[in-house]
Amino acid sequence: MLLNKMKKRVINMKNFTFGGCDTVYLAEKYKTPLYVISEDCIVDRCNEIKRDFINKYENTYCAYASKAFLTKEMARIIKREGLGMDVVSAGELYTAIKVDFPMENIIFHGNNKTMEEIEMAVKHDVGRIVVDNLQELDVIQTVASGYKRRVNVLFRITPGVDVHTHKYIQTGQVDSKFGIPLEEQLIKKAVLKAMSLDNVNLLGFHFHIGSQIHENNGYIIAVKKIVFLIKTLRDEIGFITRELNTGGGFGIHYSGEEKRKPISYFTDAIMETLLGECNRYGLERPKVIIEPGRWIVGEAGITLYTIGFIKEIPGVRIYAGIDGGMPDNPRTCLYNAQYEAIIANKYMEKLSKKVTIAGKCCESGDILIWDLPVPEIERGDILAVLSTGAYNYSMASNYNRHPKPAVVMVSQGKDRLIVKRETYEDVIKNEI
Amino acid sequence: MLLNKMKKRVINMKNFTFGGCDTVYLAEKYKTPLYVISEDCIVDRCNEIKRDFINKYENTYCAYASKAFLTKEMARIIKREGLGMDVVSAGELYTAIKVDFPMENIIFHGNNKTMEEIEMAVKHDVGRIVVDNLQELDVIQTVASGYKRRVNVLFRITPGVDVHTHKYIQTGQVDSKFGIPLEEQLIKKAVLKAMSLDNVNLLGFHFHIGSQIHENNGYIIAVKKIVFLIKTLRDEIGFITRELNTGGGFGIHYSGEEKRKPISYFTDAIMETLLGECNRYGLERPKVIIEPGRWIVGEAGITLYTIGFIKEIPGVRIYAGIDGGMPDNPRTCLYNAQYEAIIANKYMEKLSKKVTIAGKCCESGDILIWDLPVPEIERGDILAVLSTGAYNYSMASNYNRHPKPAVVMVSQGKDRLIVKRETYEDVIKNEI
Repeated sequence: MLLNKMKKRVINMKNFTFGGCDTVYLAEKYKTPLYVISEDCIVDRCNEIKRDFINKYENTYCAYASKAFLTKEMARIIKREGLGMDVVSAGELYTAIKVDFPMENIIFHGNNKTMEEIEMAVKHDVGRIVVDNLQELDVIQTVASGYKRRVNVLFRITPGVDVHTHKYIQTGQVDSKFGIPLEEQLIKKAVLKAMSLDNVNLLGFHFHIGSQIHENNGYIIAVKKIVFLIKTLRDEIGFITRELNTGGGFGIHYSGEEKRKPISYFTDAIMETLLGECNRYGLERPKVIIEPGRWIVGEAGITLYTIGFIKEIPGVRIYAGIDGGMPDNPRTCLYNAQYEAIIANKYMEKLSKKVTIAGKCCESGDILIWDLPVPEIERGDILAVLSTGAYNYSMASNYNRHPKPAVVMVSQGKDRLIVKRETYEDVIKNEI
Repeated sequence: MLLNKMKKRVINMKNFTFGGCDTVYLAEKYKTPLYVISEDCIVDRCNEIKRDFINKYENTYCAYASKAFLTKEMARIIKREGLGMDVVSAGELYTAIKVDFPMENIIFHGNNKTMEEIEMAVKHDVGRIVVDNLQELDVIQTVASGYKRRVNVLFRITPGVDVHTHKYIQTGQVDSKFGIPLEEQLIKKAVLKAMSLDNVNLLGFHFHIGSQIHENNGYIIAVKKIVFLIKTLRDEIGFITRELNTGGGFGIHYSGEEKRKPISYFTDAIMETLLGECNRYGLERPKVIIEPGRWIVGEAGITLYTIGFIKEIPGVRIYAGIDGGMPDNPRTCLYNAQYEAIIANKYMEKLSKKVTIAGKCCESGDILIWDLPVPEIERGDILAVLSTGAYNYSMASNYNRHPKPAVVMVSQGKDRLIVKRETYEDVIKNEI
């Protein structure tokens, strides 16, 4: 028995490995569809951030944007790596609380925080609340006063920078549901109001110019605009900005030519611009916080599927069905997202044809990849879709009543379950 | 106490009522976001189908397409109303089994049924399996033979009818992940193969030309094409088609001018065309099955939200945040779906401005309705979004770790909880 088990663990060199694990073995052990997350890859990214940003520049910090991927184990890893965490809801904060995440390292975001969320954030003494609008500021003051707290806040500013990315994940334009538009009079009014309140402590500003961004010029423009704002606020109302949170949005590799850039490509540009502009106006540089999510976890994840029926429509294309799709990865339908994928059990074989990977949802739009180059494939083959670490598990639904897949963490050739596969009973558990 | 309770139940005439219930009272009682489903509306639709289709034409049947909205209670209602049910996964079948839904009235669909699903369908003797492709037919034969069953099947045919609707919900074109293209040689081969197998009983064909369709001409063209196929199969290989399943896709009202048409608009066209074509070729008319989902439940549902922060961007627009959005209704992001909505507690007030309803997800695309006409609104108002009965609860996710809303069924002024609100603990329950 033990020998058998040991035998299975030996990596088949013909198979695709991830985190030192044979993905075909993982598919067999945990069944498919299966999310696999590489802890080593996450740790590598955290180390790069520490080396090239936090340790390189004084008075800087990084909070992981947990909406990209959050489980209790992920929160534990981020805590162990010494990063902070950006949460956008009571549910994300709840997860952090469950693993004793240091609350002072939590940044609470959201364009429409509920009363319950604000109370939860204040009661647990989260490090920062990023305030979206003046109504929210009033509510925070009331709640903080009730709990006899002084809450550290930043204002979210919409800097009006138009980043060229998919329109649904574009933020930063002045017409945005997020934040206060970067207009001097509006912001001056907001800052004066915050300064007048006893239970809020305005530290500075936050902006987020978009997602999956591959160029640093948007950050440079935004920083220049914000520093001019900081100067104006100092000159006109004596407000000293102590913190600047430049958000996240750093792009990763999904498919094609566009590769992930090192964190320093973005952070050096941010820091150099900030230092230059602060010098220019005689300002003390504020503390800088970045909030990468996808950049840390996106490429750290893959999804394993089993190929089902293969169907050739003569003269048109070949469709290969998989046992998942839109419910575990809605990004293809939402953003027309492009992915690369590998036949995990035929990793070394020559790519000889193209097949279209069709999800199993009863929905025409549920196509995972169009015309993927593959070797000769057959029912039962294992498909590994790459770069699914961000916004897959976190966006998963039970559409068509598909239970959510399990999540396995791999590290240095070892695998461990971090989220159990949902059962059919789980799906209907709250139904009366 | 009792008096107090009674008092609360009295409908405030200024409030929007649904299913005879005061929606503001429902929002208070069950909290928001909240799905509210009108049983009376569902029953009305079922009655219309029985009166104008099933009882009007002999040898017809209707199966509710449960992917639109399924809970145990919904399955009980469909069972009580005497309709069948179309399921597309083991999870949907599991729900039907849990309420002792008559298995002979189940139609099992899917472009890539897993082995587990086929075994489950065969073992439980579901009424029909709609076979997508020849590989699937082989598997069904093997499984059915193992269980010593003879399984009734239909072939899904892609009739090549191009229906003008949103591309993501368009089906029926020859380049489709669904079904066998309507090409004589391909289908003849498939039928001959099915006829040769001992454990499958091929009854006929299924097609589905798309979703949210407002014109009947697509059905007329598809029926004509299929009857010609039926004639050819009779003439050339002696196959007698006993059943024709014309799918669903009948449109409902979401917003604007497009109204839901009576079922007879579609079914009369289907039946008259079918009768005419069958007469023309001397064919006995097969049994006709329709599969409406959205048409039965779409307008039967509304979603209640609480308005949160209201923010005016001078010269641009006013944003009003709500306590839900993309996680409970991804259709706006997926299909740019348009909805109508009402301020439930100010139902009788004059519409005086326009506001954009922003979901609470940290995602720019999470806008529920652009420029909705509303009266003067304030934080705490209740927003009722209409026509959310289909593909809202069924597609809901926990994105941003938002727990799924509760579902309340209303009927003749009475409300009952049919799905409990998820808790934060529910969301992380499978995490290790």
